[in-house]
Amino acid sequence: MFTLQRGGMTLSALDEQMLDPGVKGLPITEPLRQGAIGVQGWNVLRADTSLPVAVLKTSSLQHNLAWMRDFCERYGATLAPHGKTTMSPQLFGAQLANGAWGITLATAVQVQVAHRFGVRRVLLANQLVARADINSVLQLLRGDPDFELVALVDSLAGVARLGEAVAALPLAHPLPLLVELGLPGKRAGCRSADEVMAVARAVATTPGLRLAGIEGYEGLLVSNDPEADVRAVETFVGRIAQLARDADAEGLFDGAEILVSAGGSAYFDLVARGFNGMRGLSRPVRPVLRSGCYLTSDHGSYQRLIGKLDEREARGAGLLPALEVWSMVQSRPEPQLAILTMGKRDASYDVDLPVPLFTHRPGPGAPTALPQGCSIVKMNDQHAYLQLPDGSPLSDSLLVGDLVGCGISHPCTTFDKWPLMLAVDDAYNVRHALNTFF
Amino acid sequence: MFTLQRGGMTLSALDEQMLDPGVKGLPITEPLRQGAIGVQGWNVLRADTSLPVAVLKTSSLQHNLAWMRDFCERYGATLAPHGKTTMSPQLFGAQLANGAWGITLATAVQVQVAHRFGVRRVLLANQLVARADINSVLQLLRGDPDFELVALVDSLAGVARLGEAVAALPLAHPLPLLVELGLPGKRAGCRSADEVMAVARAVATTPGLRLAGIEGYEGLLVSNDPEADVRAVETFVGRIAQLARDADAEGLFDGAEILVSAGGSAYFDLVARGFNGMRGLSRPVRPVLRSGCYLTSDHGSYQRLIGKLDEREARGAGLLPALEVWSMVQSRPEPQLAILTMGKRDASYDVDLPVPLFTHRPGPGAPTALPQGCSIVKMNDQHAYLQLPDGSPLSDSLLVGDLVGCGISHPCTTFDKWPLMLAVDDAYNVRHALNTFF
Repeated sequence: MFTLQRGGMTLSALDEQMLDPGVKGLPITEPLRQGAIGVQGWNVLRADTSLPVAVLKTSSLQHNLAWMRDFCERYGATLAPHGKTTMSPQLFGAQLANGAWGITLATAVQVQVAHRFGVRRVLLANQLVARADINSVLQLLRGDPDFELVALVDSLAGVARLGEAVAALPLAHPLPLLVELGLPGKRAGCRSADEVMAVARAVATTPGLRLAGIEGYEGLLVSNDPEADVRAVETFVGRIAQLARDADAEGLFDGAEILVSAGGSAYFDLVARGFNGMRGLSRPVRPVLRSGCYLTSDHGSYQRLIGKLDEREARGAGLLPALEVWSMVQSRPEPQLAILTMGKRDASYDVDLPVPLFTHRPGPGAPTALPQGCSIVKMNDQHAYLQLPDGSPLSDSLLVGDLVGCGISHPCTTFDKWPLMLAVDDAYNVRHALNTFF
Repeated sequence: MFTLQRGGMTLSALDEQMLDPGVKGLPITEPLRQGAIGVQGWNVLRADTSLPVAVLKTSSLQHNLAWMRDFCERYGATLAPHGKTTMSPQLFGAQLANGAWGITLATAVQVQVAHRFGVRRVLLANQLVARADINSVLQLLRGDPDFELVALVDSLAGVARLGEAVAALPLAHPLPLLVELGLPGKRAGCRSADEVMAVARAVATTPGLRLAGIEGYEGLLVSNDPEADVRAVETFVGRIAQLARDADAEGLFDGAEILVSAGGSAYFDLVARGFNGMRGLSRPVRPVLRSGCYLTSDHGSYQRLIGKLDEREARGAGLLPALEVWSMVQSRPEPQLAILTMGKRDASYDVDLPVPLFTHRPGPGAPTALPQGCSIVKMNDQHAYLQLPDGSPLSDSLLVGDLVGCGISHPCTTFDKWPLMLAVDDAYNVRHALNTFF
């Protein structure tokens, strides 16, 4: 499962590397070859690892990979999952091996990482502006003309910068660009159709650049009114589709196909439906979804958002949470308080604090689900405060040295805290390691 | 300045390593020897680097190192700065070369990193509980009997775990431990003097362990009433001192000296004063301060807290902010909104959002201070939203491609986002690189 579809030669270098003691989660006292991690016989529930440890459940990953492949096939959508979520070459490989068309990335440096590990097609979902970053992307393309990269623009200034750069460092093929449609008060992107068309015309007429499609990011449309959000997303996706038609009517596109792209991890069903069956343009339309968080989902905000997506899809079991952070009770200083050996360095805290799921006294057997009312109420850099419900038997039974397994909310801000994560089977046996590059 | 006081042989290995393209901040398209970074002629204000980039101002670091050395000398205090703040071997080296007695750390994995890079004395400011983590620390001590490590305990369960471990893996010297005094509703640590004394007696009577001192962490005493906080800290420090006297009166300490330790980065003056001149015990008392954030300070919460410390000390210029994150204006989609190429992956957001300080159009000259009213109002994973004041000339003059320099609030949660930071002089010339190991 965890092999790159093509060009996977460099992944094996990760398994060959020697890991020094001092990597979070690893219980090693001597250097260890990464590829040997799976044969150490470590089990998280026996507390064989260093703690805290971040684990990815391979059965959930496999379920989510298959689920998303089926989903895209059903809607005729193309998947370029956002790689900034995990920045893990092994997970990029698994996504590509499960039908992904390419990997979406956020920065030039992320593109360099992905290229180094064999990714062959990237959607860079940002406008490049810094000279050094434009330069590094152009040098990649000049040194490897078969590497495919499409980037965003949202201003005439942005087009001009790229135009000057490709004039100075010519490419074998024109650089394909998507014009970004934005939303008032939200992030980047043109605010009006007129602006989009003006930028599209500038791309089409700048030597060395070509207009490849229209793009937007609907994921910021999260308010307290989910039904209004759904309507707003549908409207936004419709505007992207119409802009593609308008630009096509003006003959601005170049290349074999037209890309239309949107789709974070909350509404990709609406995006897929909105772009489904676009026909009658001068060339085939490829709808590209960019969800990054589908791969692991979570036990917080994405679980809630994807739960609503599941309701809309009405096709039964949806995406499964795959990422957990396990730590240990370090102190039990008060009856209702347990201090855990994990903190802001180990688990997301930007959307919600971690969600305590299980406890387990190290040894054989399955972990015990924590009762309702247990919650992480605070985190410091290296500590979490687990509050136990009033009158719970846990205030007697939860001891220093017990394991606590937590789910997280927002995978992106947990992945970036772990240079190495451990992939586990359903019994929490450690099967192999996954690297991240942040 | 950036050399380890002793045992610095391994730092040079960092300068010898080859860095691949794909490291945040580095504008490289080919592998580069880390030690050659300082001779590339890069300047941040010319936008020579990849963006975002995290920079440390060496003049401010040097000022802060000297300031803290003088401070500790004045109060007869010993400094074991908390290394979890930076996790940077080069900065550990600078701290040790400027009078630090050792490095404080939070986890066994952090101890492994520090030991690997030549740190010879560690205060592990946590109770070790996981078997793998206890084991890795004991193995370090067994393999290198001159390496000094003192750790915390706050429960009989914790003492028992360590006692069993050293019975199984005997050390050349008894493992020195500090008993932690805590605070009601706060983090780890015994809640009462009786508990402290019970744990201290258990340490003193467990073979292979020895009682080395008493410890607490006052840094959580931050409320809306700063004067009450000061009184609470003074009381807390007094309790630690009294517990050291009580334990000494019972003859529980072993070793050449008695350690008393407290001192985050907000109140270390009160701690130094509180422990100053402790005499009349059975052996010399060594007060150990553990501030980690003094080294870089910040433009947010620590600047405010240290400002109050400066008022109490009344000795003029205090600690200077040394850490900035520079990014570029990527989009100007609305007159009052600039989208910057940095986000939650690049700068702290747990206490305050980053503080915009400067803007600069890439090229020669000094940066321009941003006017009052500019603020970062939101961050996504890879973007920041800079809001410009109503009617500011900036709404016309700030353009796509302009640089923006931000200060941060809470150094710990910015350091952990950068595997490599660039040290710059006052003109933002890049002088060398600093590694972090999170």
